Amino acid sequence: MTSSDLLDTALALQMKEAGELVVKDLHLLRDVLKRQAHTHKNTICIGRSHGIHAEPMSFGLKFALWYDEMGRNLERMQKAIKTVSRGQISGAVGTFAFIDPAVEVKVCEKLGLEPAPISTQVIQRDLHAEYMNTLALIGASVEKIAIEIRHLQRTEVLEAEEPFTKGQKGSSAMPHKRNPIGSENISGLARLLRTNALASVENIALWHERDISHSSVERIALPDSCIIADFILARITKILDKLVVYPDNMLRNLRLTRGLIFSQPLLLALTQKGLSREQAYQIVQTHAMECWQNNKDFKQVISEDATVKELLSRQEIDKCFDESVGLKHVDYIFQRVGL
Amino acid sequence: MTSSDLLDTALALQMKEAGELVVKDLHLLRDVLKRQAHTHKNTICIGRSHGIHAEPMSFGLKFALWYDEMGRNLERMQKAIKTVSRGQISGAVGTFAFIDPAVEVKVCEKLGLEPAPISTQVIQRDLHAEYMNTLALIGASVEKIAIEIRHLQRTEVLEAEEPFTKGQKGSSAMPHKRNPIGSENISGLARLLRTNALASVENIALWHERDISHSSVERIALPDSCIIADFILARITKILDKLVVYPDNMLRNLRLTRGLIFSQPLLLALTQKGLSREQAYQIVQTHAMECWQNNKDFKQVISEDATVKELLSRQEIDKCFDESVGLKHVDYIFQRVGL
Amino acid sequence: MTSSDLLDTALALQMKEAGELVVKDLHLLRDVLKRQAHTHKNTICIGRSHGIHAEPMSFGLKFALWYDEMGRNLERMQKAIKTVSRGQISGAVGTFAFIDPAVEVKVCEKLGLEPAPISTQVIQRDLHAEYMNTLALIGASVEKIAIEIRHLQRTEVLEAEEPFTKGQKGSSAMPHKRNPIGSENISGLARLLRTNALASVENIALWHERDISHSSVERIALPDSCIIADFILARITKILDKLVVYPDNMLRNLRLTRGLIFSQPLLLALTQKGLSREQAYQIVQTHAMECWQNNKDFKQVISEDATVKELLSRQEIDKCFDESVGLKHVDYIFQRVGL
Amino acid sequence: MTSSDLLDTALALQMKEAGELVVKDLHLLRDVLKRQAHTHKNTICIGRSHGIHAEPMSFGLKFALWYDEMGRNLERMQKAIKTVSRGQISGAVGTFAFIDPAVEVKVCEKLGLEPAPISTQVIQRDLHAEYMNTLALIGASVEKIAIEIRHLQRTEVLEAEEPFTKGQKGSSAMPHKRNPIGSENISGLARLLRTNALASVENIALWHERDISHSSVERIALPDSCIIADFILARITKILDKLVVYPDNMLRNLRLTRGLIFSQPLLLALTQKGLSREQAYQIVQTHAMECWQNNKDFKQVISEDATVKELLSRQEIDKCFDESVGLKHVDYIFQRVGL
Repeated sequence: MTSSDLLDTALALQMKEAGELVVKDLHLLRDVLKRQAHTHKNTICIGRSHGIHAEPMSFGLKFALWYDEMGRNLERMQKAIKTVSRGQISGAVGTFAFIDPAVEVKVCEKLGLEPAPISTQVIQRDLHAEYMNTLALIGASVEKIAIEIRHLQRTEVLEAEEPFTKGQKGSSAMPHKRNPIGSENISGLARLLRTNALASVENIALWHERDISHSSVERIALPDSCIIADFILARITKILDKLVVYPDNMLRNLRLTRGLIFSQPLLLALTQKGLSREQAYQIVQTHAMECWQNNKDFKQVISEDATVKELLSRQEIDKCFDESVGLKHVDYIFQRVGL
Repeated sequence: MTSSDLLDTALALQMKEAGELVVKDLHLLRDVLKRQAHTHKNTICIGRSHGIHAEPMSFGLKFALWYDEMGRNLERMQKAIKTVSRGQISGAVGTFAFIDPAVEVKVCEKLGLEPAPISTQVIQRDLHAEYMNTLALIGASVEKIAIEIRHLQRTEVLEAEEPFTKGQKGSSAMPHKRNPIGSENISGLARLLRTNALASVENIALWHERDISHSSVERIALPDSCIIADFILARITKILDKLVVYPDNMLRNLRLTRGLIFSQPLLLALTQKGLSREQAYQIVQTHAMECWQNNKDFKQVISEDATVKELLSRQEIDKCFDESVGLKHVDYIFQRVGL
Repeated sequence: MTSSDLLDTALALQMKEAGELVVKDLHLLRDVLKRQAHTHKNTICIGRSHGIHAEPMSFGLKFALWYDEMGRNLERMQKAIKTVSRGQISGAVGTFAFIDPAVEVKVCEKLGLEPAPISTQVIQRDLHAEYMNTLALIGASVEKIAIEIRHLQRTEVLEAEEPFTKGQKGSSAMPHKRNPIGSENISGLARLLRTNALASVENIALWHERDISHSSVERIALPDSCIIADFILARITKILDKLVVYPDNMLRNLRLTRGLIFSQPLLLALTQKGLSREQAYQIVQTHAMECWQNNKDFKQVISEDATVKELLSRQEIDKCFDESVGLKHVDYIFQRVGL
Repeated sequence: MTSSDLLDTALALQMKEAGELVVKDLHLLRDVLKRQAHTHKNTICIGRSHGIHAEPMSFGLKFALWYDEMGRNLERMQKAIKTVSRGQISGAVGTFAFIDPAVEVKVCEKLGLEPAPISTQVIQRDLHAEYMNTLALIGASVEKIAIEIRHLQRTEVLEAEEPFTKGQKGSSAMPHKRNPIGSENISGLARLLRTNALASVENIALWHERDISHSSVERIALPDSCIIADFILARITKILDKLVVYPDNMLRNLRLTRGLIFSQPLLLALTQKGLSREQAYQIVQTHAMECWQNNKDFKQVISEDATVKELLSRQEIDKCFDESVGLKHVDYIFQRVGL
């Protein structure tokens, strides 16, 4: 038995335990995401691509998406824990030259670890790197949520805010200035999770039956990344748990383009009535541009177009401008992700 | 003379030439930034911290800041070019055992390079890594501009847009949906510049008098990063050159909080009239919160407060709510950065 | 249906196909590793920690270790392929507003993909990042093998060499100078796999229902990394397949320290005969130092020590200096890793 | 004045101070490198490319190369310190709206900083990233030295060893097993310096007039990297200061190939006597291969070749096999690097 044997086995135990905390964090986060997904299942907001309004959607779908993604992270973390839960007592170069393999088996059993099927003086570092890569992926997923909140909390958007205590609120002479510092803090920490992971991948190619270069990296990066992962998961959970949501602002924003976001269904409806794509396009486009440039209401303008009036009933026009169109398949999607 | 000598000297020439293209790109970008800084010197917009409205500022200051930063990048790039402009003809392990050092001196002179003062079989890779790190910094600075544009082009903000041709504009049935895809493209490419740079830093610790592991990295990462840097500089320059700016929307946004962004100067004014900080704070805070919750105009409400009326003249109140306060020192700052 | 739907679904197919090539590569590599492990199961070499001789071991164990590690990489890759094998036809913001989810299901079925349970305008990028991280881990494992070969091929060590053709060999006036350029080439490329993976992790936190910043990264990093992974796996397989192995040099190296590597079993044997650890240590240490400083044979010197002679028979001393001690449990270890 | 102003100015002071420690470390390291370069100026060792013997060289050249490289790092660090030595008191969005710029100028003067010519709420992060990139480059250069030591200390090579105290030496029953753990420790820490630098480059693209995502990264990565840089510089200096060097082993290794490393000068000499390159090649190659395969002395064999004997005098042959050929231009090179 060498001190390396003991160190790596002890490290496995620590990583397992830390990983289990992360798993627990992920479960708690998923609980909150699930609840918020259901709460906001029928809350309508604008969906955005490239930062630009696209189509209406359910606000709850955002939570559902994260719920699903965190499910993948949960699986990854469980797999990573399993991967690192390996003990080793195989001697100076992994041959069991002076120690019976049965000792390894027995000790591992006692500790709740599997014996590494084969090792050098140390357990191979691809195990640890997989674990660190998993923390990096978790970090990036949490960062995605954090960035969403930062966007939603922008003064011009204000569809959601990080929670704040009554005290915080009352003390400010600038009540509009509530900064999403929790989410910003998380955005930064996610960077360290991925760069630490990379250092960990560099640890894999050790020389011969081991060199100890991995050790100095691990002494810093391993605890740091475990702590950061735990911290940001707990922090985002707390933020999401009591996220302040402004459905009225969501509707206000959705209506900002005065109906232009519905030009696609209108196009579709016109072509279904027999117009060629070119004809339909020309009508829609002309009015859309007119509305955009002069800040007019698209539905009103389109309703006065002779061709449109001829082809589409009031009801059919209404259907094109249906703000709840994004809710149509929410139940189905929720069911798919197990909500 | 070994083939390595020739390869590294040829590489130096290529990196010098590529670097000079980047320098040229930086000059062109700085020209546009300078022009736009002056154009928008007195354009008032809201300054934001944490994505939340803070204080008014000059829109031109954004360009001035980038102008200054690109000046630093210019210096860095010029230094990096100088750093890599090193030739070498020193033999298999750098001893000039079978070749006169005078040959190296002469060849380098002809090629416009300095001889590397000392080399192994190759020129040391910290030179190339400094160069790649410089491209990474340039990338991150360009990314900063790109992200600003993406923010400003958001539907809710719409203070600026990437330029679009008349054709582009006319063809769309969704005129509001102009996506900042140039800036998004840049945001992605900046990631590769920094990760390629890291691979380049890993190239430094070669074994003994050289191993050739750096070569495969360089064959991919060096040309890729040079091309990317050139491409994103040219692209952001083109975007900024004809950036569509909406000063009216800037004012609209600045006024979104209905005067709350001026609570700080008001506080200051009241304390200067003899109120304690606590007294001033209490007045400002009460009205600010009232305005925020009920969407009232802060200036109007504050103007009706008895204490305020007693202490501040109409003119003094106006001064507190001066939207042009951020322009006060623009000339001075421009002068500082050499605009 | 949007073009993003089609792009991401097409990308999934490409990544699946590329991934399957990597899986095939891994199988081929494992075949060679298995064969070489068996071929060299009883080939004795010195095991090294910190680059310094430690204890004898089986040369086959090196291959067995890599076989085991590549098994983990195989599982990871299979999991990563499964992860990215997701199609999506869910509309502009993932709501199926204007397209029936049944279309997605049907198309995915035809293509051999699972529908992404939930998506925005795009499939979430943690899937792609997991895949790229897997390629990075594979790269680092291959790098480990490559670095081992580079070490073994050093002039002073020369226990193994990359294969060379008769032609290559015959043409050189410096027959000792066969450079492990294949392995060095691999060492470099592994760096790019891990840095590309990091860029890929940065792609995860897209804005709202998508921004397109990931695209420029993916157009470069995804094909590059797939090609690199395939290339280095094929290259290392070819190198290992016909690796030139010098068992005689292994023995020569093992004997370089003239028996000092056996001081541990000797210590053990003496204490088992009743000496205190301190007494045993003092004897062994004195002779070891004497041998080291004067380049004497440790076994011979120790055999002449009075106490040793008294306590240990010739046979017992021989057992302490048994060069095949590292083979004792090779069968057991092979069985553990499924060889 | 905002708290950010103060924080960034304070940070500048800390980074300046930390940077000056690194500069001091670099000077101390260069002192040791200079001394060792001179000490080993005429110590002959084999130069290696690809880990394979190439040509003889001066051992002192290795130190001279590092001396030169550390000179570049010194310049970089001094430049990086200058870069970050910037104070800022410019208000919430950098406009000096409520604070006179003269205050900034005065405070900076007192603190020995330059005012940042332009800032937002914060000093721009390209400054900090340049600094961190510099630490990463220093790390990689130190890593290069560390890896050289690890190579030289390998049991088969043993040309140099990390220093050890008498006590350390005396206590071991395995006197050959002195592990280069200091250098291995450094090898690992260099990885963190470069990955921390990358996180720092990600900090540059802050939103608008600042977001606070950089802060969490900096709280961890900045102090860590400064401490690591200081630590590894001090450690490598200590190792190099008392590096144990074995010139006899260097000669032993140099002679391992029994003269084959001199085939190049022999080829040259023969062609200079009028042989065609093909003819010369054939002679040298045939004998070289014969020697390599049968472990014969190349000089002896070549001296018996009829053609060679006819063309080259004993003295001329001796000159081809001159082990001191690598020292020829050492003085010149030393002069070039300022030694």
